[in-house]
Amino acid sequence: MSNIIVAQSGGPTVAINASLVGVIKGAKKSGKFDKIYGALHGINGVISENFIELQGLDEDKLSCIYSSPACYLGSCRYKMPPVDEDTKLYEKVFEILERYDISSVFYIGGNDSMDTITKLSVYGERRGSDIRFAGVPKTIDNDLIQIDHTPGYGSAAKFIAQSMLEIAYDTAIYEVPCVTIVEIMGRNAGWLTAAAALARNEYSQIPQLIYLPEIAFDIDRFISDVEELLKVTNNVVVAVSEGIKDSSGAYLSAQTAANDKFGHAQLSGAGKCLEMAVKSRLKIKCRSVELNILQRAAAHAASKTDLDEAQMLGEKAVSYALEGNSGFMPILKRVPGDVYSCIYEMGKLSEIANKEKNVPREWINEAGNDVTQDMIDYVQPLILGEVKIEYKNGLPSYMEIPHLVTSRN
Amino acid sequence: MSNIIVAQSGGPTVAINASLVGVIKGAKKSGKFDKIYGALHGINGVISENFIELQGLDEDKLSCIYSSPACYLGSCRYKMPPVDEDTKLYEKVFEILERYDISSVFYIGGNDSMDTITKLSVYGERRGSDIRFAGVPKTIDNDLIQIDHTPGYGSAAKFIAQSMLEIAYDTAIYEVPCVTIVEIMGRNAGWLTAAAALARNEYSQIPQLIYLPEIAFDIDRFISDVEELLKVTNNVVVAVSEGIKDSSGAYLSAQTAANDKFGHAQLSGAGKCLEMAVKSRLKIKCRSVELNILQRAAAHAASKTDLDEAQMLGEKAVSYALEGNSGFMPILKRVPGDVYSCIYEMGKLSEIANKEKNVPREWINEAGNDVTQDMIDYVQPLILGEVKIEYKNGLPSYMEIPHLVTSRN
Repeated sequence: MSNIIVAQSGGPTVAINASLVGVIKGAKKSGKFDKIYGALHGINGVISENFIELQGLDEDKLSCIYSSPACYLGSCRYKMPPVDEDTKLYEKVFEILERYDISSVFYIGGNDSMDTITKLSVYGERRGSDIRFAGVPKTIDNDLIQIDHTPGYGSAAKFIAQSMLEIAYDTAIYEVPCVTIVEIMGRNAGWLTAAAALARNEYSQIPQLIYLPEIAFDIDRFISDVEELLKVTNNVVVAVSEGIKDSSGAYLSAQTAANDKFGHAQLSGAGKCLEMAVKSRLKIKCRSVELNILQRAAAHAASKTDLDEAQMLGEKAVSYALEGNSGFMPILKRVPGDVYSCIYEMGKLSEIANKEKNVPREWINEAGNDVTQDMIDYVQPLILGEVKIEYKNGLPSYMEIPHLVTSRN
Repeated sequence: MSNIIVAQSGGPTVAINASLVGVIKGAKKSGKFDKIYGALHGINGVISENFIELQGLDEDKLSCIYSSPACYLGSCRYKMPPVDEDTKLYEKVFEILERYDISSVFYIGGNDSMDTITKLSVYGERRGSDIRFAGVPKTIDNDLIQIDHTPGYGSAAKFIAQSMLEIAYDTAIYEVPCVTIVEIMGRNAGWLTAAAALARNEYSQIPQLIYLPEIAFDIDRFISDVEELLKVTNNVVVAVSEGIKDSSGAYLSAQTAANDKFGHAQLSGAGKCLEMAVKSRLKIKCRSVELNILQRAAAHAASKTDLDEAQMLGEKAVSYALEGNSGFMPILKRVPGDVYSCIYEMGKLSEIANKEKNVPREWINEAGNDVTQDMIDYVQPLILGEVKIEYKNGLPSYMEIPHLVTSRN
């Protein structure tokens, strides 16, 4: 019996631990492996042999990890150098993998992480190694290609829509005109911001305006969009991506460099920038709200569809590897039809890494200030289902954090 | 049989609707009233006779309103002028109350709202009216006197502690030093910010630093507090009240006025201000997170203890009024002992309105950068219990919004 290694990398999502649980469960179920090593802090944990053993985690612990935020194993932002640039490093990694009798490596992450695991896979092939390398997808940004949607996106979309719904109630109570700008994550892709449209219901059309980074942002058009709405309502709520750019490609947020008291330039975010524009041009009450890191951390409000798919992708990664595959990432393919369902297939890592998927132009309205029904139909099923969270003393009872023990946090 | 009026006023909380449900249920149970009028947008709705009838709401609807955010009846920021300044306005209000055969008025709100209902009560007494006036307390700020804690505070405290816990997980994943500043509501009182301490558990001491507006803020001390922590951990998380002031009483946030591209001065918040200070002085990664209006709007994460007490305060207001009382606010008194419980009594509105309750000095540590166990013991029971929320299409199924119909939102 051989062993496997699993690691997590990149920014956290609330689904990344469900994928970890999927890998662990898949490996245990197969009965083909002796030890399941978790490398702490991504590839860094492999290079420094910073491993913990995961095969002993019981059902209760796995269930708690499944629904806990961020990364059970910690993360890293380290990107492996090109294969030909530092062969010594790759040699070192393979020497470690062989010494630990590793037959498969599972790397859970987003775009940069897929790059790392692709490089390892390429080097392994060149070396004639039979170790198998699999990427397991996650990113709230939903910008990986080939996969219908990425784990983490559904839960973030659910939190965004839910927050927008609660903001709709909160902002609706007064009779005086007011504009609220809600800034949502997404530097290049508008998937998260588009999900704000799910907050609309029979009582409210909030957010009435949605601006994605896929469309060049025109501040004059924006002001006139808001003005038009103020003719028919007192309460205008705008969803805006942090990554909106003007027609020259410059981030809107970078247009408002300001000096702090220590003499250093700082950048305002897109939301703050639009807040200032509304206040100064329309002379009415305006506030901006940045959903910030809760978008990717609010595990208490996760989508069950999302976590279940994330777990299944982890399990599938193990079974595809056991079938002899390497250099792949398990993907979700949506089955056409009225009822949402997905099938699981394999994508080639070499085709996926370092590519980016944007919201298609036809899912954004002509005016560039809203999304279409197609976009809403795409994201709606991904937020379905709530995850049962255990509470203790009034707060979610999340997992222990083993990676902290080693890094003195 | 006479009628009653109930209204909501001031900023929203997630508990203000539970108090409304308490008034409605109390009134229905008593069998003493014919109609239960809801005035839309607070006292403005009384003055403009903008009423809806509430006695027909069934159990299902009341249960949905109980757990919905913001104000079923809308709100206002209007403060009644002094009684002697505009007797015509008061005459008008009493003429309306009499015409609608109102025997009791219930006004759900915070400090400013207690001022309004106090004035009506004073004027009524002078007029020899037998209409009874009751304030029903709510404010996330927890700054009303006489009452052990205010409805809305427990739910906001729970959301803040939960968010802090999720931020603790999110920020712990990397091995590089990073400081995170979390800005929490509270201009004058630190109750909300203090609740962040509840996030600490056996795995994490986050937030390691807590700064309340009750203590003069010293930015040099703050920087050295952070520096000390960075010697033993990579991940420093700070909870800071939006209202921190320096020793001259100036809001820290006002120290960093910056010019936007339109040439208008704008103020950075306290969190942003500290973020800039850490970046410029310590040259390390730092980000700020503003919990913003979700603190008072996130009904999906409400405290059951809070909502149940809010409802009971509404019911008590009705029964005290039926006993012949006026000019009062029902209050909670905590029963001393190891097990949390409260009894309900009456407070005098004239003694409560326009006064403010701060966190006592002895509940803040000597250094002024944390809270004591007494503070934690005070707030801990207030966040207990979760409220069952119905979900539809992946989102909370909140109440309809009747006040929107009248204001064209």
